[in-house]
Order: sequence, then structure tokens, then C-alpha cells
Amino acid sequence: MKNTFGSSVALTIFGESHGQAIGAVLDGLASGIPIDENFIEKQMNLRRAVGKLSTARQEADKVKILSGVFNGKTTGTPITFMIENQDTRSRDYGELAYKARPAHADFPAQMKYHGFQDFRGGGHFSGRITAGIVAAGAVAINALACKGIKIGTHILSCGGVYDRNFIDIENDIDTLNNLDFAVLDTDKAEEMKSVISSAKSEGDSVGGRLETAVVGFPAGVGEPWFDTLEGVLSHALFSIPAVKGVEFGSGFACADKKGSENNDAYFSENGRVFTETNNAGGIIGGISNGMPIVFRCAVKPTPSIYKTQQTIDLNTFEETSLQIQGRHDPAIIHRARVVADSITALVLCDQLALRYGTDWLA
Amino acid sequence: MKNTFGSSVALTIFGESHGQAIGAVLDGLASGIPIDENFIEKQMNLRRAVGKLSTARQEADKVKILSGVFNGKTTGTPITFMIENQDTRSRDYGELAYKARPAHADFPAQMKYHGFQDFRGGGHFSGRITAGIVAAGAVAINALACKGIKIGTHILSCGGVYDRNFIDIENDIDTLNNLDFAVLDTDKAEEMKSVISSAKSEGDSVGGRLETAVVGFPAGVGEPWFDTLEGVLSHALFSIPAVKGVEFGSGFACADKKGSENNDAYFSENGRVFTETNNAGGIIGGISNGMPIVFRCAVKPTPSIYKTQQTIDLNTFEETSLQIQGRHDPAIIHRARVVADSITALVLCDQLALRYGTDWLA
Amino acid sequence: MKNTFGSSVALTIFGESHGQAIGAVLDGLASGIPIDENFIEKQMNLRRAVGKLSTARQEADKVKILSGVFNGKTTGTPITFMIENQDTRSRDYGELAYKARPAHADFPAQMKYHGFQDFRGGGHFSGRITAGIVAAGAVAINALACKGIKIGTHILSCGGVYDRNFIDIENDIDTLNNLDFAVLDTDKAEEMKSVISSAKSEGDSVGGRLETAVVGFPAGVGEPWFDTLEGVLSHALFSIPAVKGVEFGSGFACADKKGSENNDAYFSENGRVFTETNNAGGIIGGISNGMPIVFRCAVKPTPSIYKTQQTIDLNTFEETSLQIQGRHDPAIIHRARVVADSITALVLCDQLALRYGTDWLA
Amino acid sequence: MKNTFGSSVALTIFGESHGQAIGAVLDGLASGIPIDENFIEKQMNLRRAVGKLSTARQEADKVKILSGVFNGKTTGTPITFMIENQDTRSRDYGELAYKARPAHADFPAQMKYHGFQDFRGGGHFSGRITAGIVAAGAVAINALACKGIKIGTHILSCGGVYDRNFIDIENDIDTLNNLDFAVLDTDKAEEMKSVISSAKSEGDSVGGRLETAVVGFPAGVGEPWFDTLEGVLSHALFSIPAVKGVEFGSGFACADKKGSENNDAYFSENGRVFTETNNAGGIIGGISNGMPIVFRCAVKPTPSIYKTQQTIDLNTFEETSLQIQGRHDPAIIHRARVVADSITALVLCDQLALRYGTDWLA
Repeated sequence: MKNTFGSSVALTIFGESHGQAIGAVLDGLASGIPIDENFIEKQMNLRRAVGKLSTARQEADKVKILSGVFNGKTTGTPITFMIENQDTRSRDYGELAYKARPAHADFPAQMKYHGFQDFRGGGHFSGRITAGIVAAGAVAINALACKGIKIGTHILSCGGVYDRNFIDIENDIDTLNNLDFAVLDTDKAEEMKSVISSAKSEGDSVGGRLETAVVGFPAGVGEPWFDTLEGVLSHALFSIPAVKGVEFGSGFACADKKGSENNDAYFSENGRVFTETNNAGGIIGGISNGMPIVFRCAVKPTPSIYKTQQTIDLNTFEETSLQIQGRHDPAIIHRARVVADSITALVLCDQLALRYGTDWLA
Repeated sequence: MKNTFGSSVALTIFGESHGQAIGAVLDGLASGIPIDENFIEKQMNLRRAVGKLSTARQEADKVKILSGVFNGKTTGTPITFMIENQDTRSRDYGELAYKARPAHADFPAQMKYHGFQDFRGGGHFSGRITAGIVAAGAVAINALACKGIKIGTHILSCGGVYDRNFIDIENDIDTLNNLDFAVLDTDKAEEMKSVISSAKSEGDSVGGRLETAVVGFPAGVGEPWFDTLEGVLSHALFSIPAVKGVEFGSGFACADKKGSENNDAYFSENGRVFTETNNAGGIIGGISNGMPIVFRCAVKPTPSIYKTQQTIDLNTFEETSLQIQGRHDPAIIHRARVVADSITALVLCDQLALRYGTDWLA
Repeated sequence: MKNTFGSSVALTIFGESHGQAIGAVLDGLASGIPIDENFIEKQMNLRRAVGKLSTARQEADKVKILSGVFNGKTTGTPITFMIENQDTRSRDYGELAYKARPAHADFPAQMKYHGFQDFRGGGHFSGRITAGIVAAGAVAINALACKGIKIGTHILSCGGVYDRNFIDIENDIDTLNNLDFAVLDTDKAEEMKSVISSAKSEGDSVGGRLETAVVGFPAGVGEPWFDTLEGVLSHALFSIPAVKGVEFGSGFACADKKGSENNDAYFSENGRVFTETNNAGGIIGGISNGMPIVFRCAVKPTPSIYKTQQTIDLNTFEETSLQIQGRHDPAIIHRARVVADSITALVLCDQLALRYGTDWLA
Repeated sequence: MKNTFGSSVALTIFGESHGQAIGAVLDGLASGIPIDENFIEKQMNLRRAVGKLSTARQEADKVKILSGVFNGKTTGTPITFMIENQDTRSRDYGELAYKARPAHADFPAQMKYHGFQDFRGGGHFSGRITAGIVAAGAVAINALACKGIKIGTHILSCGGVYDRNFIDIENDIDTLNNLDFAVLDTDKAEEMKSVISSAKSEGDSVGGRLETAVVGFPAGVGEPWFDTLEGVLSHALFSIPAVKGVEFGSGFACADKKGSENNDAYFSENGRVFTETNNAGGIIGGISNGMPIVFRCAVKPTPSIYKTQQTIDLNTFEETSLQIQGRHDPAIIHRARVVADSITALVLCDQLALRYGTDWLA
């Protein structure tokens, strides 16, 4: 299974950056979920993040729903989202057609697809393919909301500038979901933007960390081995282009803690069980414990930079140098954030359907 | 798919800590691979790691191969590894039968299995279940070795003490695979051991970081989305009990770098392509680029500690306190290392079989 | 996995009869396969089978390829086929909106989708959805042809009239693939057509048997258990709407034979192994033996008939009667034949990719 | 996935006829199901069917449960069934080691496993491997019984002798489940036995048809495409060694019927919906309609016969002849019947878990 992910609720994605269209097929979601086209559009806009920090193509990213919706509600059969590419004119790609851009997939793609891959604009490797994930994710986010489950992601760090941590998670999620630039501390948001602008003016780029939280997710979902909640979530999260690390709860920092510091003590209130701290990030033994699910993704700096780079010719493997032209994103982390929310929602819908059946929303 | 992982080469695991037996079924490996029972035993011993740093049960962990091997070679049909539990006598588990141990899976297990789970010694959640993974992994490691692919893991940090980084990776792997306590810098090994001993004497525990490297893996294996090499590896690695983070290449540190620092410049030598640095950890766009695959896992401190902890009763959810008795491991990272190697080998065998077919070893 | 089938080569289908569009995403096919749009169109026309025996909608069924093809060849990434529905105007479905048509999926759909399903024209259950399978199948058929593998299906029986059996299978396949009405014996073709016409004039319908043969498929592909070639093929073939039985080789007739009659004796010629008879239908122990793969599908008579039928109201479950109006197909077997070829091709591409790797075509 | 079948409830099988042990791992079944070891033993005995009609090895087929059961109930984690082979002494297999037995898997196995397969007694292809399926199936049958779902299979025909059809299905199932030789009409049972005895005395063998019925299965389970109930059931049923055809409801006979004859009219009683006839075999559009699920499997005559047969040498492919010695089964259909029940139960448990969640039994 290559471009399909999920078991009971599964997403299939398709498309190339400069092909006819990109999109996704979302299968297995329960019938009867209302489709909120405004919310889909809002999420699509967060991903496009048009503005001076991004050089997204000025395309409307209009989502057409081809199937699976009837009278404004899901039918229970595959929902197909299509976004037509408007900017697909043939042009001269020059040396980008045969020189491997460092940190881009050009070289491994050549080794896998033997030169038949569509190289234009990154082809099937383009971050643009996440548009289909975001469209499908919007429906998944709405489905979870019907069960009181909320997801939010903030830019924990960008170019070395750190946002504050989650405090009151549910409130913080609500705040984030109303922000275009998802940073909880307004001052830090401005600092990050200025770091991104400087990188841009230097022809360079910056990376960062995303932190995602989920509240309202029930205890007892997940598996002890292999399909641990961490395993399944990370599997999907590493599809976000540029993600190179995923950690849950106290994450890598737990490695330097003592057991007595890292163990989360239990307490109960009104018949519900909680932990005093949440170093586990809501998951123990691969299974949810009812506390907020919290994880972080490391996002590498955008590989497209203006500086001259040493590389090889894709056909001859001879050494050469490359100086990328044209527009590029000095950062993608503010755009990746909605992709993290979307993938999380899709994975959690699948987990709930596996645990509670295909009518889990009823 | 719960206790089964992999597609063309798949592993199914079973067992409980104090049940009749634990084990694994390894399916889809090519026929004709020699089975080296000494190597299996060596790997099993690394996992047991009997000594004063561990309190592993003094069981021989004798692996019986029930199927899939004929005349000392794999037949191509499922290979079943069984390790009988010797220490399965009924005894009084006292409060452990109904009190949730913090940072153990007791509470989420209760929510998932409704009290029918085998709680003795952690049951199916026990680290002991990794014995089956290690037995199967030994065969996978040997299979990869036939193609010149080597895997090694060192304890990058333990209780705040750091080993040196990989330098000459292939040599370092050879060194590691001859060490019981997998640390490249001998002085640091001693320091780590003494940190573990102190934790033990305090009734506490420590965590750490594992760093794994793979050399000889071909370029062009993996998928751009969902089944990215990072995604598939992390999915499996989060099954190692106590792992709470996985990062590839420069990992979380890439978040603070500029593109010009993190991009790996290409060069070629004798018709093969290399990168100057390996911030990508051997994987770009989800696909191997022929450089060493390098990743790190965060291992949380062992949850079993002697200190009194606040918790809840599993049946009534009422608050109570718990003071764990008996032997416990003050650290598991030195034992987890061979599990990391094993899981990595199993995932890579699957990836190679998917890419090159079931006779990929021929 | 619901609307996705296959492992290394996988097909995802979507759409409803009167929705915006129907289609399919074909993932995992090797890169570099030439796309023959004329052949796709030819196959689409076989499925539409416009003429007096069918009442197919007079739609062009124009296939748009949205992704996965670049410079006329497959890229190795998902190929998306979209067929826009032209006839999607809102209209009054009258009693069809709430009365269960016997032998149609209306009632089970109601029990599964709780009334949210798109009932118009059968919605996602419509035979029209096979158009996406046929488009994708055309590419798979071409891929197999590059390796000398040919597939052909004839109408073995229709309304009680039987075609002759396969004689020289490869020649027969070539003949069939040039026929609109796939019957080897021309006289029998005419008889079948007249049986269909009579059924039509009576407001009734007829069923039949399809027989498919594959030549050139290598020995040693398939699995002994579960993913037997028979198991995987039948799994997919039962997706052809109206198929209620699948048999391989001598099939159900083998039940009345003696072992001495049914066993296929081996012989060899120029270092290749053959069997004198082919009661096995090319598959023994779940694995191909290099002989032609031969199987038959039972196709039930089209459920839409003009006669008044007893049924229930989908909402109240009260008994009522129904008299279906409008156009209907008195037989679909002549149209289903190209679906059988397509599904067979898709399954076999997947099997070859699993066995020989993703570059199996090279 | 080769020796693993199922999604939420999955079975993995292992072993060779003359290896150390055979068995199965059943994963995903809900916790809390009582394990009835007597029923497991009863089912194992039905499969062994020791008597003058069979030449089953005189082994006790004692099932050891290695994991997944605690205090007599399922824990929710993998249940491992192991049956040790007692008769595994080394002996001289003579020409069976290198001559392909017609209609056995020897030749395709050679093409797939390159001579490394365990050829002794059929190795992994042996019907003996079904013992693991039957052990696991017994637990699945019990689980379904908790929800009022019953399964029964009779020998519809054997060597040309036909049993009567199902009349009162639930009663017939109860009757069958108390019979060693599962034939509803006692006279026909005697006739079948005598046909089998004659075949034996001629050194020949006979095949037959199995007919399975399931009552109590709810409406609304299954999928419209690919994972149709027919597709999933047939996929698994073709794993029963010797099965060459599967048909549902009126099956192949529907091909000769008119729509007006084959459509099942609906009626309702006390708010439940039924059909007057059951030509659909309980499945329409891939989804259950609440009527009994009914299907038939064609079982080919046992390939091992005493007559001299023409074959090839597995290594040289040169022609030779073979005369099989020793004990053999002149029929296996009376033993295959419990395998059909077992596979059906496992598939249906999986379907119910997918539809209603992992606690579907609660």
C-alpha cells in the first residue's frame, strides 16, 4: 500500500505539482456526517498561507467533491476531493530537469522511478500534494468534533524562536484554530516572522517544531505492539514533507529523566481517571489513557535556497553545481501545521472506527 | 493487524510474561537462508543482559524453531520461534493485580481489555515479548548480511552521559556487534554503568537514547507518502517498549538549522553518488539515497521504581498508593539496543522484498 | 480496506451513478509503461456496449487521466482516471427512493448506511462504477502484454445457450479481443442475442457464465494459504456486480470426478513443464504452474425487470409492491466480460509485483 | 500478507507436515470469551476423522494453547495454538523427494521455493496445516454462538451421490454439528461411504461438494466492492486444500435463470425483513441482508492415488513415472467440512469486529 493509509478509514492521495489535478479519496468514514464546505476552504487557505512569508502559487485551490456526498452529508462511500492545477503550462525547466536539488527527492526518485517521474515542481513529491490531505482532514476534523474531540497544532519553535508551551490545552486549541500563524505567544509570533523574513532576504530558509495536542480522545484505543498509537501516528506524520522527527509527551527529554520524575501519578475525579503530569503524552503501552495526546514534529528547513550548491547530474552522476532560481518558501512550518492537524484527525478517525465500529459516530 | 507487522516479510508475535510460552512467526522471508542458531542465541543473550545492571529472570530463553527451517535453511514458509516460560508458577500478585502502576500499561489495558488481560508480570505488554522479535530479527540480520547490509546500535546517552558519535560507521557497527554493553567510548560505558548503579541504589531508574546506523542499503527503496522509510521504521520502532521519540539524520536539531546548513551536498565517486554530510539520515522524500540510514530513539526511564507512588484502583478508580516490591531493572536501554537492531532488520527485509521481489536475496 | 484492492499494485475506486464523477486511482504500477489512450477507449466502449441489447446511458464515458502519466508513460505514482457523469440532473425518483428493489442492494445498503446512501441509479452500487476498473484495467492489460501475458474472456453461456469451449487458447484470446460480443461460436452468438431480445420483450432478464483464460503467466506465483491465486482472484472477481460463483479449471465438475480423471499428468518439452490436461486451471496449491489460468464466473440475471414485484418500504419495513419503470438491461454478461479481463489483469500485475518486485516489467 | 488472513480478527498459520509442530495465532478476538477445550478437541477429532474412510495419522492432535488465555477466558491478545507433530522421524522418501506428484503442489512449490521447501508429507502444503485453522475456528465458532450465530456444513455430494438440501436450516445445522459424517439424509450417508470405499479399493479417490449455512448473522455487514462478503469468504475458502469453486445462493445455477425467477421477493414480519426465496444466499451487493448465508465449495478428488502416473523429475524436468505408495485418503470431503465451518467463523468474526468494533461481543 503506497499512497493509501489507514485500515477502516483510509485515505488515498494522488497527483503531481504540475499535472492535471491533485486530490484524495477518503474511504470508510461513517455515513451522515455533515460536510462543511466553508471549513474545508478555511483549512485549504491555512495550507496555502498566501502572504509575504510564503511564495505559494496564487491558485485558488478550489476543492471539488466528486463523490461520497449526497444532500450535504457523507454517504459512507468514498469521498473524492479534486483540486485542479491551474498552472500547468509547459515551460523550460532548464537544469532542474536533470540536476539533483540537495535535500529534495530528485536523486532517490531517479533511483526508484528510473527517470520517468514527473520532475516538474517536485511532481508527486511536492508539498502541494498535501492539499488533498487537508481537504480530507477537514472532514475528519469535523467528524471528531461531533464526538467532542479537538485537535490543535502550534509552531513550538521556528528558526530558534520558541512559543510558550500549552497551558490550558482545550482553550489553547480553540485559540490556535482561529489563528493564521499558529503561535500562542503573540510576541513570539512576530519574532518568528522576522526570522523567516531575514532567512528569505539571505536566500536561505529555516525549520522548526510543531506541537500538536488532542483533547477528548477516549482511553483504551490503540494496540500494545506494532499498531501502537505512537507507531500509527508517527507512520502518518512522517509523510508531512520535511518532518524528520516525532516525539510523544516528554519525548527525547524523557531520556534524561529519572523514573521518579517521568512517571505520571494517577488520580481520579468523579469516576474519571487522570494523571498529575502528562509525560506519557496521553499514550501508555501504545494505548490512549484518556489524557490529552501530545506530540511534536521536527520540520527541517525548506531545501530550496538561492545559494549555489554542489550536486550531481541525475543521468550521468557527474558532479556539477546548481543555483535554484525563482520563488521559494523560506519556511513551510506555518503551512505544515494544518497538515499535521489533518493527518492526526484522519489517523484518529481510523482508530476510533477500528475500536468502536464503522458507526462509531452514531 | 495488531500483532503482525510487515507486508511481504511479516512478523507476528504472541505471548504473555507468565503464560506458557512467548514467540513469533516470521513469514515471507526467502527460502535458502542459512539459520545460524549460535547467532540467534548470541542475540537472545544480549537481550537478556544478565548481570548486576539488570534483573532479568534467570531463564535460559532457549529458542525452539517449530517450523519453516529444513536442513538448516529457511524453506520460504513461516518460521516459528517459541520460547517457553519457565517461571510461570502461580503466586500472589497482591496489590499489583488491581493497582495501576504509573507509566505501565495497566490502566489503558484495563480500559481496552475490561479486566480480562493477563496482568502477571505485565502480561502481553511485558518487555519479555521482545524475545520473539529478537529471535526473528537474528534471522533477518543474517539475511541482510548476505547482501552486505549491516546494522548496529549504540547507547548514545544514558542517564545524561553521552557516548561519542558515529565516526567510521561500518567499523563502529562491527565494534558494537561485539560488545555486550554497546557504547563506543569505553570510558563513557563505565560512567553509564555507574549512573545505572546509582539509580538502582536509590530505587529509581534512568532512560537514554539509542542511535542506530545501517550501511550498505541501496538507494531507491521506500515511498514518497505514507510508506516513507521513516514512517515504516518509526511505526515499528515505537513498539520497542519505552520508546517515546524517533528522529532521523539531524532529527530535532534540524529544526534550528538553516537550509544552507542542513542540505546535504552531492558528490560522486566511481559512478556512485554520495552526500558530503548526512543530515538526511540516508532518507530523502521517504526514499533511501544510498547513504547510511541513521536514526535515534528516545527510551524513557523504566517505570518500575521502588518509591511510593500515587495511583488508582483499577476496578473502582479510587485513589490509592503503591510501593512496588521485588526485583526491577534500573535501566533497559542496554537491553533494548538489540531489539532496535532486530526491528530495523525486519523492516528492511520487508522493504527489500517489496522493492526487488521475494527472491531479493538470490 | 474497502474500495481499495491489491497490495503492491492497488486500485481504489470511487463514485456514484448520478454523482459528479466516477473513477479510480491505480497505484504501484511500474514507471515507464506506455499509455495507449485508444486502447483505454476501446475497452470503455466494450463496457458501454451501446446497442439494442443494452440500455446503457448514452454517455461518452470519456476518461480523463488526472495524474501519474508524464510524456505518455506511467510515472510510477498513482494514476487517476476520472469519468464525469453527464446525466446528473435532479429528478423525481418516485418510489425507487424508498422501495427496496429485489436483488438490488437497496435493503442491505439501508442497513449499512442508514439512509444516507445516494440511491439515485444504484449510487455507489451501480455497475457504472466498473468504468473506473475498466480504465485502470486497460493499463494493466497493456503492462502484462509487455511480458507476453494475454487475457481473454468469452460468454460461455447466456440464457442457457452455450458457446464452444476454449480450444487453442492463445488464438481464441486474440479472436475474443477483437469481438464486441465475446462468443467464439458465431452461431451461438446469434442465439444468445435472440435469447436476450426475448427476455427484453418479456420485461425479464437473463444471466450467464463468463470463462476467462490467461496465457503466458509464469509458474511459481501465488501462495499456499490465504493468498492463493484462486483466493485472490475470486476475492476481486466477486466485485463484478452479479457474480455469484467462481470456479477454476474443472471447477464444480471436479466434484464428480475420480482422482485418476482429474489429476493432470506432467510432461516436458524443451526444458519447460506442461500438463496433458488442465483440470487445475493453471493453479495447484494456490500457486501458478505455468499452464493457462482458466476460470469461470456465474453472472446472475439482471435484477431490474418490468414485472411487478413484492417488496418492502425501506423506512417502515412495511410490505408493498414495486413495478420498475424506464430503461433496463435485459442482460449484462456481454458488458461484464471486459470487467472480468480488467480485474484479472489488475490482480495479476499485483501478484507479479509482489513476486518479482516493483520493476517486474523491466 | 501470506500466512495471515483477516483485518481486525486475524489468523496466522504455520508448520509443516513432518516438522516440529504446526499451529496458528489468532489475534484480535475480543477479551472475555470462554475457552471450551472440549469443543476444541471435538472439532479437532472431526478433522482427523479417524476410521476406515481415512488414513489420518494416528496422532492425538493435542492442542496446546500457548498464549492469550487467562483464567479460562480470552485476554484479547494473540491466542496461540500449537499441535506438536509426533511422527517426525527421518526416513527415506525415495522418489517422492524429487518426482512431482500430479495435482499436488510439488512442482509449483519447486518453482517458488527453489528446492528449499520441506517436501516431507507435503510440507507446508499438507492438509494437516488445517489443524491450526480448526483449533482457532473452534474459538471463533464459540464467540459467534454467544451472539446467536450458528454455522453448519454438510456434504452436499460425494462421488456423485447427493445429500438432500437444507430445509429448516437452523435445525439442520444443529443436526450436522452432532454428526461425524455430516450428511442430512442417513441413507445417502451410507451410499457416500460405500462410494468412498470402492474408490479406495480401486486405488482411486473421489471429490464432492460442501454446502455451508450460517443463521443469525445481522443485515448490513460487508462492502459493496472488493471486500464484498462473497469476496472475503471465497478468498479464505480457497485456502481449504482441494477447493476449486465457490458459489453463493443459487450460484452457478443462477446463470440459467430469468431475473423473475432469481430475484428474492421481500416481506416483513414483526419489524424484521425477510425474503421469500434465498437465491442471493444472504448477500446482496456484497452486504448481508439478514437471511441465512449459504454457499457451496467444490472439493476435487484427493490427488494421491495408487495408479501409476506420468510426471517429471523436479530437478531435471525430465519425464518419468510415479507410483505413490503407502496410506492415502480416498476422500477428504468429510474431513474438510469442519475446516469450512472454521474458516467461515473466522471470517465472520473479523467482519463483525470491523463493523461493530472490537467489543462487538459485549
